[in-house]
Amino acid sequence: MSLIPQDIDTPATLIDREVLERNIARMATTLGGKGLALRPHVKTHKIPQIAALQLEAGAIGLTVATIGEAEVFAEHGAADIFVAYPLWLSPGKAERLRTLSRSARISFGTDSAEAVREAGRLLGDDAGRLSVLVEIDSGHHRSGVTPEEAVLVADAARDAGFPVAGVFTFPGHSYAPGMPGAVVDQEGVALQRAATLLREAGHDVAVLSGGSTPTALLTGGSVATELRPGVYVFGDAQQLELGRCTLEDVALSVASTVVSRHEGSGEVPRRIVLDAGSKMLGGDRPAWATGFARVLEEDGARVTALSEHHATVIWPEDSPLPALGERLRLIPNHVCVAVNLVDEVTVVSDGAVVDTWAVAARGRNS
Amino acid sequence: MSLIPQDIDTPATLIDREVLERNIARMATTLGGKGLALRPHVKTHKIPQIAALQLEAGAIGLTVATIGEAEVFAEHGAADIFVAYPLWLSPGKAERLRTLSRSARISFGTDSAEAVREAGRLLGDDAGRLSVLVEIDSGHHRSGVTPEEAVLVADAARDAGFPVAGVFTFPGHSYAPGMPGAVVDQEGVALQRAATLLREAGHDVAVLSGGSTPTALLTGGSVATELRPGVYVFGDAQQLELGRCTLEDVALSVASTVVSRHEGSGEVPRRIVLDAGSKMLGGDRPAWATGFARVLEEDGARVTALSEHHATVIWPEDSPLPALGERLRLIPNHVCVAVNLVDEVTVVSDGAVVDTWAVAARGRNS
Repeated sequence: MSLIPQDIDTPATLIDREVLERNIARMATTLGGKGLALRPHVKTHKIPQIAALQLEAGAIGLTVATIGEAEVFAEHGAADIFVAYPLWLSPGKAERLRTLSRSARISFGTDSAEAVREAGRLLGDDAGRLSVLVEIDSGHHRSGVTPEEAVLVADAARDAGFPVAGVFTFPGHSYAPGMPGAVVDQEGVALQRAATLLREAGHDVAVLSGGSTPTALLTGGSVATELRPGVYVFGDAQQLELGRCTLEDVALSVASTVVSRHEGSGEVPRRIVLDAGSKMLGGDRPAWATGFARVLEEDGARVTALSEHHATVIWPEDSPLPALGERLRLIPNHVCVAVNLVDEVTVVSDGAVVDTWAVAARGRNS
Repeated sequence: MSLIPQDIDTPATLIDREVLERNIARMATTLGGKGLALRPHVKTHKIPQIAALQLEAGAIGLTVATIGEAEVFAEHGAADIFVAYPLWLSPGKAERLRTLSRSARISFGTDSAEAVREAGRLLGDDAGRLSVLVEIDSGHHRSGVTPEEAVLVADAARDAGFPVAGVFTFPGHSYAPGMPGAVVDQEGVALQRAATLLREAGHDVAVLSGGSTPTALLTGGSVATELRPGVYVFGDAQQLELGRCTLEDVALSVASTVVSRHEGSGEVPRRIVLDAGSKMLGGDRPAWATGFARVLEEDGARVTALSEHHATVIWPEDSPLPALGERLRLIPNHVCVAVNLVDEVTVVSDGAVVDTWAVAARGRNS
């Protein structure tokens, strides 16, 4: 990655343009080579300029998590958007979906007969303008139903007036060491069985949608028809520690400054404090992670504590402690929540600022 | 707390007006009774209307974490602001502090001779318009120096042209079960010793500033002269589980809807999924917490997993699982990071929306 441009104050969220473009091209090429459609999840970046790069590289459409995100990307020209979430519609949300369906091809997720019946009641004849994918639980045990239950949900969707486009799953349990390989198999089995049962029940299942960044590059072309990875555009410390990306693949970092420095002694640890905390990086810290973030410049450094505006960093004993005022880059554990904390990101190329992008869908949680 | 008003869509951040006002009055009365000044940390709420209520109730000024927060509250009329952070100034930040010092009384934190020298170099003669408090490490081992080292820092500040107003500490290690009592003692000892040493070195130490919400109501009046609690205005799940507030003191919650519901069987857990995740609640989860948030309506429910837009909730076996579409309120673990995720909060009173407040200082991390 490029160095931190001198003309920006810290903390600031930086995106390396070349690394971003390389990540986007690699995923598109890899999935294309396997005959898999790519429908990237844009909740990771929430930035229309990045979605445009993904679509130019061959993505067939976008995935979002909320109606609010769909609205932002539709305003910026996205023509095909899947809301990969089991929506429970209120009258207000139904009206927003109806409006969206006039400017883009919209599909959404469901995992219950109750939810599609309520949606059908609120949307009336306009239900036919949207389509539904049934969410399958492939082992993550969050939302989603079994392949057997999926038939009842799909029947209810059809009865409520919604075309059933297919099935989808989120293999979130792949976010753990050693898991991606096993999870790819579970995902494939669950999607295949659901599709088979739905077809036997008379549903035209065109889409089998799976995939997360940890599993996307492992997935073969035989079961899923499309994948929805998100994090691959930036990488993050979780992907790094799971071995799903390298330091050279990390496109987003948070520029920070050493504001406190302590050589330590006895029980008091040798450490520096950087001016980026959980309000820049997010507070995610899975049990298997080695810390709350990683330092791009020093592989052996560990962020042992994160306050709202302080990252406490234990520095390797054999390496000199950085000076006060020195600037370092932090890699967030989970980049999706880090981007959602800032109004804009600074795009750098060869150590110079080349652009500023608004995080246009930041905070669109509803 | 009031019920969720029917006319708002979820997820939405709600503030109960009566509970908020009661919390503000109680802290002001308690500290006033002990002869302690209250300088609340407004990073918790970032909302000028709440700062105004705190000042009306007798707060002597405000505490902020960043220059950006100071700018927002100064624009809204705050006259006395302490940036409780060891600032490392860039030319741009120095200019912003200079501008701020023309409209409000501004003090800031430091824990190194290097930082105050750099600040003095950039501010020149305007250094005298600001004042400095030296940060003491009272056992949290984040930023801050020992009382002995504080003398060198205070000398450097004086030499750089800054009036030294006093000393401060943040007893962050009080955020753990059983800790508040012990930490209050450590805080008192550290502040007292630093003040004594600084006075012996010829510094006029008027302010001994301490306190966090877990310790504020325990602190006696004998050592600190002012306290800087933040979270007390809202309460949160951490304070609840530390026993520092009750459910009746919780003024902020996130309204959410049941979007997925599973009776479970075998290895698949009985659970509901609510439509508020880490992008509404924040991802903070200390090891001692029982989950990622609490459910206001059901004390026995546990949020066992939090995705960006999903809270997975295990419901007590002896209690019927809520229906799809039912609305529940989640209490964030750490309210400061939850408020920072939304652009506005909905103020409710007796179950009705009475106001909407902008989170004016949201995202002001620099």
